[in-house]
Amino acid sequence: MTIAVSLPAADKTEWWCKMLGDLMPDWEITPFDKVTDPAKVTYAVVWRPATGQMAKFPNLKAIVSIGAGIDHVLDDHEVPRHVPIIRTVGTDLTQRMKEYVALHVLRHHRRLPDLQASQAQSKWEAIIVPPATERRVGVMGLGNLGAAAAQLLSTIGFQTVGWSRSPKDVPGVTTYSGSDGFGEFLEGTEILVCLLPLTDSTRGIMDANVFNRLKRGASIINAARGPHLVDGDLLLALESGQISHATLDVFHVEPLPSEHPFWAHSRITVTPHVASMIDAPTGSKIIARNIRIFEETGTVPDLADVERGY
Amino acid sequence: MTIAVSLPAADKTEWWCKMLGDLMPDWEITPFDKVTDPAKVTYAVVWRPATGQMAKFPNLKAIVSIGAGIDHVLDDHEVPRHVPIIRTVGTDLTQRMKEYVALHVLRHHRRLPDLQASQAQSKWEAIIVPPATERRVGVMGLGNLGAAAAQLLSTIGFQTVGWSRSPKDVPGVTTYSGSDGFGEFLEGTEILVCLLPLTDSTRGIMDANVFNRLKRGASIINAARGPHLVDGDLLLALESGQISHATLDVFHVEPLPSEHPFWAHSRITVTPHVASMIDAPTGSKIIARNIRIFEETGTVPDLADVERGY
Ligand SMILES: NC(=O)c1ccc[n+]([C@@H]2O[C@H](COP(=O)([O-])OP(=O)(O)OC[C@H]3O[C@@H](n4cnc5c(N)ncnc54)[C@H](OP(=O)(O)O)[C@@H]3O)[C@@H](O)[C@H]2O)c1
Ligand SMILES: NC(=O)c1ccc[n+]([C@@H]2O[C@H](COP(=O)([O-])OP(=O)(O)OC[C@H]3O[C@@H](n4cnc5c(N)ncnc54)[C@H](OP(=O)(O)O)[C@@H]3O)[C@@H](O)[C@H]2O)c1
Repeated sequence: MTIAVSLPAADKTEWWCKMLGDLMPDWEITPFDKVTDPAKVTYAVVWRPATGQMAKFPNLKAIVSIGAGIDHVLDDHEVPRHVPIIRTVGTDLTQRMKEYVALHVLRHHRRLPDLQASQAQSKWEAIIVPPATERRVGVMGLGNLGAAAAQLLSTIGFQTVGWSRSPKDVPGVTTYSGSDGFGEFLEGTEILVCLLPLTDSTRGIMDANVFNRLKRGASIINAARGPHLVDGDLLLALESGQISHATLDVFHVEPLPSEHPFWAHSRITVTPHVASMIDAPTGSKIIARNIRIFEETGTVPDLADVERGY
Repeated sequence: MTIAVSLPAADKTEWWCKMLGDLMPDWEITPFDKVTDPAKVTYAVVWRPATGQMAKFPNLKAIVSIGAGIDHVLDDHEVPRHVPIIRTVGTDLTQRMKEYVALHVLRHHRRLPDLQASQAQSKWEAIIVPPATERRVGVMGLGNLGAAAAQLLSTIGFQTVGWSRSPKDVPGVTTYSGSDGFGEFLEGTEILVCLLPLTDSTRGIMDANVFNRLKRGASIINAARGPHLVDGDLLLALESGQISHATLDVFHVEPLPSEHPFWAHSRITVTPHVASMIDAPTGSKIIARNIRIFEETGTVPDLADVERGY
């Protein structure tokens, strides 16, 4: 039986094959383009696979997404929708995302970009902000990542609110759900963090309408997917002052094209999709374990709901 | 009875007089330079008072430092050493310091300055660092501020170590004490945070010798007092690569003179003494309460040990 692997870079694909191979000696682990008998492929382990490749494997039992999101798998419309998709998550991924969110929320909260602009002019200009206990931070999406990030923000001291599709209980966090709760969730929020999955209902969610409902001068952090954000609306909101700063880790096109206005914008911080990532040594252990459990039981706890889109 | 108030800026002095006056209607609250009868002054409430002023008040019961440190009071060698000094601390001060430390430790940990240097060149260059659980952070000083900051760093996930004069117990933090424990404390530390009081034994503690004991490429954060750092040693350590970045909130001379090399150094972040500060509305409540307790009992929990220097 074969496990076929595909990542955008050939050397990364090789690395994952090697790591998985060490852990799963009974399996043939092969890059997509070196598969000799497509009928033998029962699992595809992928990150942003090229469209049409997986449709060539008629006997797929499951697709494994190297990451928490499955949007990059569903982008391939030729994959039969009945094939289960296994997400790859774990404490390592969650830890890294918590760090990213805490760092960038604190950075906006303490107005570090403004302090650094003063330094660039050798200007000693104290900016005193209220303590975090008087700052409202909102986290959209309370899954593995969002719930953990929100809980840490609350521990740091922020007034933390969260929003999800179904009602959720997160210690220290005031939660809202569904479209009914969205307005109240946004009201008074000064720092908005997006940790939603990309689906038909969340695409373009960060638009002018949402910006206008935040407190004036609010900032946003997008650590989910580029298409959650309406780029043009952000640029206008920065111009009007409704939004004061944005930190973006993800973009409609990645790498972010060099001519994109975000790169040189003084009030946009661009990070190159580094918020959280599973590397091969850690991820291959999780994937090997998930495939073993799936073989034995026909399911895993981290199965995505393909119908729902996440 | 009179409470005399002195801060470096006259408008700040006025603000504190007003805030204290509202809370202590039975007292005469007066700026130093408007005191008519020095013999009536029983409390001096000060931040960086000018030398020789307090010696003019023969009946001082206590000096109140507007802040956690008392070094700025002891700098005035004309003040009789038997006068007790009351520190002004509280949850607000601690909260702000925790935020500052968490922000800057995370910023160094995640190499945000390098990511921002890439952005300045429109370069998409992922920098993946280990999770915080594999990063050792050391906090010097485990008092009100240091212990709280270290505990938060541990909650975020860092391997956190702490150092103090006498042995301390801080949840989640491995602690060392005294000169015997200093070497072990420094060993393997990648981010060093200073939250010591400034005394004869801590002046110049961050020098070449300490830098050389940290892990190569370590970074430092000084949120205590400028003279804890030997400026020239830092510049050399940055040049050699032994230290990769420094974030400094405090300086030998403040405001940092515009010709000082720290301002324009690409691997030094200068913040203008904003890590944590008690403002008049919050601080006057703490001070009014401390003076009331001192009047009744002759002491307060936040009394400094003048002999010890903090
Ligand atoms: N930048 C990076 O480096 C990076 C790394 C990893 C992941 N990510 C992104 O982070 C996303 C979240 O990951 P995760 O593991 O936390 O996902 P998850 O466990 O599937 O959680 C998704 C959360 O979003 C909520 N949600 C989904 N659709 C919604 C809607 N229409 N309205 C309101 N709430 C909705 C869900 O609500 P329910 O709880 O009610 O289902 C759930 O709370 C991933 O999909 C990926 O895009 C980014
Ligand atoms: N940048 C800012 O905005 C800002 C704001 C507020 C305060 N600060 C600075 O922060 C400092 C700390 O404040 P705090 O309230 O936490 O002070 P604190 O409660 O007096 O605690 C001081 C800590 O340092 C330790 N210590 C003192 N001398 C030492 C030595 N020679 N060797 C090893 N450890 C030693 C003490 O050890 P023991 O526990 O054994 O006594 C104690 O743990 C202040 O003094 C001030 O300089 C800066």
